[in-house]
Amino acid sequence: MTNPVVNKTAHPFDKARLESVLAHRFFYAPAFEIYGGIAGLYDYGPPGSALQSNIILEWRKHFIVEEHMLELDTTIMTPAPVFETSGHVARFADWMVKDIKTGAVLRADHLVKNVLSARLVSNKEARALAAQPQKEDEKAKKKAKKDKGKPAPVQLPDELAAEYENILAQLDNYSGPELGELCRKYNITNPDSGNEVTEPQQFNLMFASSIGPTGQHPGFLRPETAQGHFLNFSRLLDYNNGRLPFASAQIGRSFRNEISPRAGLLRVREFTMAEIEHFVDPEDKNHERFAEVRDVELDLLDRHVQQAGSTQVSRMRIGDAVARGVIANETLGYFLARIHLFLTKIGIDPERLRFRQHMANEMAHYAADCWDAEIENSYGWTECVGCADRAAYDLSVHSKKTGHPLVVRAQLPEPIVTERDVAEYNKKALGKTFGKDLATITQAIDAFDEAQMVKLKDELSHGSATIQSPDGREFKLTPDLLTIERKTFKQSTREYTPNVIEPSFGLGRILYSLLEHCFWSREQDVERGVLSLPPVVAPTKVLIVPLSAKDEFKPLVKEISLKLRKAGVFAHVDDSSQSIGKRYARNDELGTPFGITVDFASVKHHTATLRERDTTIQLIGPADDVVAIVTELVEGTIDWAEACRRLPVYEGVQAE
Amino acid sequence: MTNPVVNKTAHPFDKARLESVLAHRFFYAPAFEIYGGIAGLYDYGPPGSALQSNIILEWRKHFIVEEHMLELDTTIMTPAPVFETSGHVARFADWMVKDIKTGAVLRADHLVKNVLSARLVSNKEARALAAQPQKEDEKAKKKAKKDKGKPAPVQLPDELAAEYENILAQLDNYSGPELGELCRKYNITNPDSGNEVTEPQQFNLMFASSIGPTGQHPGFLRPETAQGHFLNFSRLLDYNNGRLPFASAQIGRSFRNEISPRAGLLRVREFTMAEIEHFVDPEDKNHERFAEVRDVELDLLDRHVQQAGSTQVSRMRIGDAVARGVIANETLGYFLARIHLFLTKIGIDPERLRFRQHMANEMAHYAADCWDAEIENSYGWTECVGCADRAAYDLSVHSKKTGHPLVVRAQLPEPIVTERDVAEYNKKALGKTFGKDLATITQAIDAFDEAQMVKLKDELSHGSATIQSPDGREFKLTPDLLTIERKTFKQSTREYTPNVIEPSFGLGRILYSLLEHCFWSREQDVERGVLSLPPVVAPTKVLIVPLSAKDEFKPLVKEISLKLRKAGVFAHVDDSSQSIGKRYARNDELGTPFGITVDFASVKHHTATLRERDTTIQLIGPADDVVAIVTELVEGTIDWAEACRRLPVYEGVQAE
Repeated sequence: MTNPVVNKTAHPFDKARLESVLAHRFFYAPAFEIYGGIAGLYDYGPPGSALQSNIILEWRKHFIVEEHMLELDTTIMTPAPVFETSGHVARFADWMVKDIKTGAVLRADHLVKNVLSARLVSNKEARALAAQPQKEDEKAKKKAKKDKGKPAPVQLPDELAAEYENILAQLDNYSGPELGELCRKYNITNPDSGNEVTEPQQFNLMFASSIGPTGQHPGFLRPETAQGHFLNFSRLLDYNNGRLPFASAQIGRSFRNEISPRAGLLRVREFTMAEIEHFVDPEDKNHERFAEVRDVELDLLDRHVQQAGSTQVSRMRIGDAVARGVIANETLGYFLARIHLFLTKIGIDPERLRFRQHMANEMAHYAADCWDAEIENSYGWTECVGCADRAAYDLSVHSKKTGHPLVVRAQLPEPIVTERDVAEYNKKALGKTFGKDLATITQAIDAFDEAQMVKLKDELSHGSATIQSPDGREFKLTPDLLTIERKTFKQSTREYTPNVIEPSFGLGRILYSLLEHCFWSREQDVERGVLSLPPVVAPTKVLIVPLSAKDEFKPLVKEISLKLRKAGVFAHVDDSSQSIGKRYARNDELGTPFGITVDFASVKHHTATLRERDTTIQLIGPADDVVAIVTELVEGTIDWAEACRRLPVYEGVQAE
Repeated sequence: MTNPVVNKTAHPFDKARLESVLAHRFFYAPAFEIYGGIAGLYDYGPPGSALQSNIILEWRKHFIVEEHMLELDTTIMTPAPVFETSGHVARFADWMVKDIKTGAVLRADHLVKNVLSARLVSNKEARALAAQPQKEDEKAKKKAKKDKGKPAPVQLPDELAAEYENILAQLDNYSGPELGELCRKYNITNPDSGNEVTEPQQFNLMFASSIGPTGQHPGFLRPETAQGHFLNFSRLLDYNNGRLPFASAQIGRSFRNEISPRAGLLRVREFTMAEIEHFVDPEDKNHERFAEVRDVELDLLDRHVQQAGSTQVSRMRIGDAVARGVIANETLGYFLARIHLFLTKIGIDPERLRFRQHMANEMAHYAADCWDAEIENSYGWTECVGCADRAAYDLSVHSKKTGHPLVVRAQLPEPIVTERDVAEYNKKALGKTFGKDLATITQAIDAFDEAQMVKLKDELSHGSATIQSPDGREFKLTPDLLTIERKTFKQSTREYTPNVIEPSFGLGRILYSLLEHCFWSREQDVERGVLSLPPVVAPTKVLIVPLSAKDEFKPLVKEISLKLRKAGVFAHVDDSSQSIGKRYARNDELGTPFGITVDFASVKHHTATLRERDTTIQLIGPADDVVAIVTELVEGTIDWAEACRRLPVYEGVQAE
């Protein structure tokens, strides 16, 4: 009774229904809607803002607080020279094509993907139809009735279908000209018009602006927060007392002027990111806390599997993946595991989460290796977190451009002591003998390796030696001009440019995928949608529902509200005139995990009922016990089964 | 002993010292510094980010949670038509002048202010010098020695000095052409070059960009978050079940392309704002919770006092200010009081906080009335929070432009029942008699007021009536053509455009002013700066300091860290090799209010000492008691005096 099985898959996932709930409850909505909207810009309403804030709070705890990261808040507006150096002005671009007649702009890779995917779907339909044991004319009739106006499915030859599958599996690996070739070879046209498209051209994805009144300072809106970390590297290193490794972290807005955004929150022109730049010694990418995550299991899809045209994941313990070299080093592995733990903690379905390695041509210009956490949703597998090894790329280019050293000077644990032979010159005598060739000679000898030096020493000890300068001339040297002596050298510091491991989170994509994973309809009524958001991220934790707005309920409602607020639990009172059932239905759609009902009996006996969203089971108990138990439920120290052990089930009648 | 008076004013405020601490500890720094920087753009480092986050957290509690505001997160990038409608494209501008020779760009009002202020300072010096009982030549010698190259002070005639004072007191009230006149009249030139400047021209302060690949959608970066609230008004009203008043709130980045920003964090091109839009019935601006703030006292500087050339504030209870009409209504008064409570809670000195009303010409184009919370710092009185009554301006213009009604339809508590005489026409007969003049006649009669209608009824009852159409023609009417009847009308809803009260917070300005208010140097050593940030906003609440990094201290340090984390207290361990005194000095500069020291005795007896930052007093007790007490101190449930009653003072020797 207390733990009935809730059937969340009684109805298939209905995207239209979810979208209607999200719009109606104002999780988010197209920005500037009353002005006709602009593609790729969305506003978050109260529940969406709260959900986003809660995801950020949890992110801050999981990463920044837990790992003592150094938080930053740097500017979005960035002078152009920074992105010239970082390579973004030249290379942060997508390939676009234009419809040769209408001029409509399309992203080249999306065009290829959409057209080939559609042909594969059509192929499958055609084959299914052909396999049905029906008479030809019946089939035709049925089809015509069902599809109206939709083109008849077209069956593809086996080899062509295989070619398409192969192209799609490695689509991110094609260059612009290659995408153009695909369009020609497979006759890919604009599906909206049927017209041919132009050759792919690059379109830079940064929004441009100009800083100050004179127009002398072109600027861009950052497409990532990362450069703000790199430019402050010296200050961060100082703040960390000069020690490595350390990580900086930043949560903030970034902008990408997408060519033709169409996938809701998944492809937007303005978005909130959370980025970590973990600075590490390139010679030691082990991680101090790797042992803590060694046994976390991930679904991995490495580069080689994809290049073979497959998307078959391997489930692997992260310890094994690093040991076998599937993942390059412990630090990268550590972060992949921590990303997995974070995503599943906030409610992402682990069965719909995989880590995919970038293929060579797919990687951003700054990356040496990259794994994406991809989450499956109705749009397919979606990159939600990138985890790139940017090596020393960014620090090196900025350092070179500005002349400001972005390096670490590390004290060596033991100074390195070396002995070697060096030449001691009698410069006066050398000058007299060789004049202006003096420098040529000393430079040639200073460049000698150990073997050459031993030979020179030996020859001099026998009276004289002949050396050759780089330009081929020979000089005869005698012991009065120079001697070779054994000397000791001591090196106590080492200077290096750190490498950077960068986990970079697209919060909007995570938030949207989470909403899909959490949405279902009640078995008995498909119209009653529920968002099973975990308490940790739910916008409101507890709904307090008095039977009506009458004064007699107010003191107890106020008492419970205050006690919850004191306990740090965000509750909301709904004393609107709708029935309790309707109010609970609204809050099921808002993802509120718990409800507290106050009725006449509550007022009389100082009790309350406690409702759990997914099961709709209600418990009853003294008001203070209910407050205490719901607080523990929200904090995650107990689960619902434990709550059911502590309080009896409410058997009374209450409209649901 | 436990509560010695700490003398925070032993040394005068030293801005250079504060700035050095802020840069060295990376509270914030000029952005893109290694690229030479860009005026008006700053990055926040770890302590600055944490301070800002804590201010935001407290803001969210104080406003959003406490008043059940609807939080939003809307986009920064905004299509141009929105700001064309809102008036920002035409009017969101500052007046700038150019140096006629160098072309340097200056903000006109700042130029006038700086030059006249400098002349007044010089005037004071000259008068002070003249008043000194020294011989002329001695004076001259002394001055020459002291000032080297600085121009000699110039005494102004009394009337001229008074004119300058008067101009400065109402500087914000001048239009661009008037500023140009001031420059000519008072011979105001560019102080950097001595050159004349051009006539003031308007410079729009919005950053411009372009959305999408075709260049068809010009856009601006928002200069305020407000438009995002207004455009979503209908959704917000729905979310609030159609009820008014309610408030939306948003914390986010905004951008202003300042002409020549020079005042550190006070005038920047990119900044974080927190804005509230409180939507209210224009016919009822009373506030439900006004009684709670009635007795809060504010320093007010109203419009009339300023126009009289004075800056003398009046301290007033907010209840009295509203009652006397100094503040227009309860809602505006309520928010001014709440703003005051928030600012003083986070550590702003109430003696350096005033509320100044805008003068008529100074107000933004959308505002009907406006009060600024101004905080005094070394730059003078600085606007940190604006509290504007935007009336129905924004909702009206957007509604008119888009055709989307942004209104409230309120159910009237009692339907309004009215009776009046209306004409019932015999249209067939009227048409026969008057042909196409039928419409002219019925429109004329429908527009009759009550008296006209009574007269018409009376005449008709006597056989016939003559009416005049708007174009002067006369028509004779008889009872067969129309009758006048008494009817009852019932109005059950009222439709209106809400007014908006907008408290708008510039978080960077508040943060900087707070840092100035909290900074002082220890009496015994001016080099030892302290930031007395209140625990509620301090970046780190507790510093844990083991005597050294040796292994024997680690278990107790770890235990205390974990217990603090579990209690939700953000602590930081400093086990660097520096002396305890130096580590505490560093954390005094970082504003960390409490320190816990672990030494050999602590490990032996499971104790710890607890240090308070301002007094440097240390208490000692069992480790668990120290953790419990510091938790209460951070949560604000006890103060330091109470902590001193619970734990004995530590009398041991410890380097400070």
